[in-house]
Amino acid sequence: MKRAVVDPYKVKGEVDYNKLINEFGLEKIDNKILKKIEKHAGELHFMLRRKIFFAGRDLNWVLGEYEKGNKFFLYTGVGPSGPIHLGHLLVWYFTKWLQDKFDVDLYFQFTDEEKFLYRKDLSMEDVQKWLNENMLDVIAVGFNPDKTHFIIDTKHAGILYPEAIKVAKKITFSTIKASFGFNDSTNIGSIFYTSMQTVPSFLPSVLKKKKIPCLIPHAVDQDPHFRITRDILPKLGYYKPASIQCSFLPPLEGNLGKMSSSKSNKAILTTDSPEQVKKKINKYAFSGGQPTIEEHRKKGGNPDVDVSFQYLRYLFEEDDNKLKQIEEDYRSGKLLTGELKKYTIEKINNFLKQHQERRKKAEKLIDKFILKI
Amino acid sequence: MKRAVVDPYKVKGEVDYNKLINEFGLEKIDNKILKKIEKHAGELHFMLRRKIFFAGRDLNWVLGEYEKGNKFFLYTGVGPSGPIHLGHLLVWYFTKWLQDKFDVDLYFQFTDEEKFLYRKDLSMEDVQKWLNENMLDVIAVGFNPDKTHFIIDTKHAGILYPEAIKVAKKITFSTIKASFGFNDSTNIGSIFYTSMQTVPSFLPSVLKKKKIPCLIPHAVDQDPHFRITRDILPKLGYYKPASIQCSFLPPLEGNLGKMSSSKSNKAILTTDSPEQVKKKINKYAFSGGQPTIEEHRKKGGNPDVDVSFQYLRYLFEEDDNKLKQIEEDYRSGKLLTGELKKYTIEKINNFLKQHQERRKKAEKLIDKFILKI
Repeated sequence: MKRAVVDPYKVKGEVDYNKLINEFGLEKIDNKILKKIEKHAGELHFMLRRKIFFAGRDLNWVLGEYEKGNKFFLYTGVGPSGPIHLGHLLVWYFTKWLQDKFDVDLYFQFTDEEKFLYRKDLSMEDVQKWLNENMLDVIAVGFNPDKTHFIIDTKHAGILYPEAIKVAKKITFSTIKASFGFNDSTNIGSIFYTSMQTVPSFLPSVLKKKKIPCLIPHAVDQDPHFRITRDILPKLGYYKPASIQCSFLPPLEGNLGKMSSSKSNKAILTTDSPEQVKKKINKYAFSGGQPTIEEHRKKGGNPDVDVSFQYLRYLFEEDDNKLKQIEEDYRSGKLLTGELKKYTIEKINNFLKQHQERRKKAEKLIDKFILKI
Repeated sequence: MKRAVVDPYKVKGEVDYNKLINEFGLEKIDNKILKKIEKHAGELHFMLRRKIFFAGRDLNWVLGEYEKGNKFFLYTGVGPSGPIHLGHLLVWYFTKWLQDKFDVDLYFQFTDEEKFLYRKDLSMEDVQKWLNENMLDVIAVGFNPDKTHFIIDTKHAGILYPEAIKVAKKITFSTIKASFGFNDSTNIGSIFYTSMQTVPSFLPSVLKKKKIPCLIPHAVDQDPHFRITRDILPKLGYYKPASIQCSFLPPLEGNLGKMSSSKSNKAILTTDSPEQVKKKINKYAFSGGQPTIEEHRKKGGNPDVDVSFQYLRYLFEEDDNKLKQIEEDYRSGKLLTGELKKYTIEKINNFLKQHQERRKKAEKLIDKFILKI
């Protein structure tokens, strides 16, 4: 097995999440934390029950503050460089659950300049097109429009840049090189960029002129950005942001890396038609089943590597008992790959149907979501 | 003689301007260029006659465009990190002359974040204080309020940053290292900063949606910034900015480096009282005279290294005949150091009196000068 590489600009190889916890110095989400969340939320989201959100930083602290009446705000975001796929939805639907259960504000950052700077092939016009498309998807998730604030880096540069330079003054190029795998040939915009990604984690504290705790739900590859953020914020007089981190939804072709809209046309997109979903799952979703039905009935399938099963587990089968039954039936050979795929296709299409209906109505809500400055 | 170092963050040693022309690849201002300027201005500013503005880039081109009716705009600026001294005024009063004679717009940039990022000891509050003070001095120069537009980096970040990232995408850290003497320990804000200094050279073209030539009057140490600018702008579809560059007003203690408000309290400031000017010139101004009056009468003084004489030449004695007489008399020993200093003090104080009177009335004009966005 090749060593996995995980940073914001690269996820390569088979990721060992336990190793990552040690390497990054993350805190595993234990039962104590789960109990605290359940106490306030009234339930545990299936992504927590299934350890899809598996680690974090300062979760005990941020929940403790919440109990003292010192409410946190949520901060997450996306770099608009392509269509939205299921991997994005994983974090966002969980974030919506947190927003609803804890009744908190969400600052959602669209890092348009990040993608423009990092990707040679992307023009600012391309990025602005994706920005608009991506905003529709975020709105379609169903976030509370009264408590959700879009920050668009180029549009909000007037408030972000004056704060970002305070961050930038405390970060050397050495730090950036080590964290993001940059070198002397990296452009100076990409080098500066992490300062801009840091700002939303304390911007509400600036705007409201008091220290407010921040909780960042994100996929584990973004941790290097926020490790730097955590290092800097106390020096500027703010709390370190807490985080809750998830593993990667596997790409269709199987358990390596993370789903990406830039890498292939084989990711499932939020705008896919039922026919496209059916075709993608049937044609590309890596199967844990046996080559023939006879063999499958005899030896059984392997749900651990089966992408359809993993999609049910990550996103589409909320019912634990149902999921367990499917797992057992697949492992025993009772459930065939074709049957599993058929069920998964139905679940995805049902999910996307609702998402797409909300997405259609999203355009006219954009203005309401954009942070007023 | 030690080799001189000249870049935006360091001017050290005795500067050989002819060597600098070769090293930087500048164009010497020749009679052909002077004639062109005189043709349009109706006269030649004494700083041109005396080769204080001694070099430039693309001056023939920018004057040619002007003759074709394609007017340039002027762009210069200051990093607000301390009080304004005579060295600043040199460039600004010449810039005012250009504005008046060619009847053109001036974009004046206050690079507040540059100084905050570069100087460990400066807080944002310090910089904002100096920003306000420095604006008063710029207004006191007497620029045309209808044609002069202040750009303040943190205040105008909303329009600067989205343009700066287009510049930044085309500059690698290698380039920055070589140009500014930076290294891996430099903070990422300073590394990014030159992108922000580039923007005013094409911002009017963005705002007015057509290519407009730009002429930058500046001291020669800023050339590394604008060499990068000239490299990038054609790639973004704009003209390379032209420049007209001056040598450094010597510091009081003599002909090494440039006058600086951060280095000592021995620079002459725009806010100095007549008594302070008198004391500074008498006590600190390096003299080219002889140790005793007798010796001076016999051997004569050296105006080339005499700071009082140089101040007359650079800024305060507009009359060439008068200056020539002083030079001859000093060289022959007829004019004593004390007498030269007395005359210089009078000239400076007369100049500053008028500047200070305009400065007093400047506060209420600030709003009018700040670029509307």
